[in-house]
Amino acid sequence: MNFPSKLIEDAVTEISRLPGIGKKTALRLALHLLKQHEAHSEALTLAITRMRSEIRYCKTCHNISDEEECSICLSHRRDESLICVVEDIRDVLAIENTNQYQGKYHVLGGVISPIQGVGPEDLTIESLISRVESSAHAAPVQEVILALSATMEGDTTSFYLAKRLKEKGIRVSSIARGIPVGGELEFTDEVTLGRSILTRINYATE
Amino acid sequence: MNFPSKLIEDAVTEISRLPGIGKKTALRLALHLLKQHEAHSEALTLAITRMRSEIRYCKTCHNISDEEECSICLSHRRDESLICVVEDIRDVLAIENTNQYQGKYHVLGGVISPIQGVGPEDLTIESLISRVESSAHAAPVQEVILALSATMEGDTTSFYLAKRLKEKGIRVSSIARGIPVGGELEFTDEVTLGRSILTRINYATE
Repeated sequence: MNFPSKLIEDAVTEISRLPGIGKKTALRLALHLLKQHEAHSEALTLAITRMRSEIRYCKTCHNISDEEECSICLSHRRDESLICVVEDIRDVLAIENTNQYQGKYHVLGGVISPIQGVGPEDLTIESLISRVESSAHAAPVQEVILALSATMEGDTTSFYLAKRLKEKGIRVSSIARGIPVGGELEFTDEVTLGRSILTRINYATE
Repeated sequence: MNFPSKLIEDAVTEISRLPGIGKKTALRLALHLLKQHEAHSEALTLAITRMRSEIRYCKTCHNISDEEECSICLSHRRDESLICVVEDIRDVLAIENTNQYQGKYHVLGGVISPIQGVGPEDLTIESLISRVESSAHAAPVQEVILALSATMEGDTTSFYLAKRLKEKGIRVSSIARGIPVGGELEFTDEVTLGRSILTRINYATE
């Protein structure tokens, strides 16, 4: 596209660097900002700048936080013996939305991915290990639940974490893989269906 | 969603004000910006701020421009007797991409839409009329091509413009509505098909 203005070309280039936004969408967004009152784009840029420069991460679980320690880590109502390991804040929000989990979290900040050059040392894995170790006296962590994506990278990370954590004598589990609730058997892919048979749940006998 | 940080909540709120971007996408974009180097989000906010504060509009055709007059209006290679009326810069880019048009443009800045409170006075219609009038001596405009969307608002605007321009003795035409090239007859909606019969093209007789 040949833009009639360098200013709009620069804006479109920068906006289209965002994931999932192409040149056409970027142009639509730029034109939208031009049509709106200037206060609108000022609020947008200020919010982004402040977020980028002032954001902090919880020193315990590495989740995004405004304080040194996040509200979940500070809460005394939550089970300290249970840690759920997730990739990023979106997974924390998703699990919190279920209202089914009352333990603590640990945010890895990604998954091991040799292709993208992400190794164990780029994640908060050592912090998780030392967190488990240091809890041993006061309120020992009894179980670590791995809640990573069911992808190659997620599985690799889970495998690595399970190995490291078992050395410390911690019980390690993973969230179940299977047919989604409401899903129909015939439309489930064979890998999921195969796994759901291998990891079948026994009904409790009375 | 209950965000663990006010900073990220503000950023998500502002980003999700953009058209077509919901809260989930906004959170994904915000987390992307957090993962990237700070220079990335700085470049983004600077480009948006500069675009919003420094952008200018061509005094003749009202297209976005870095100068007082845009490159198309300044060009002597383009046919000054022909003006193509479009809604916004995206339409100029789309028509320029066809390489089929060598005239000038006039950017309305929108279409008449009573529901959204856009009247003829909010668009650059008076500027178009006076542009046609003032050209009468030197290089008279001979034809105005209306290239507006085939929607209710676009048709209303075309109708209004045609009436105003015909009073000035200008030939007014509209881009053809019909079956898209490559489109199949049976999958074309009845309104388009009906119109394409009414506005059929006569083959030239030898």
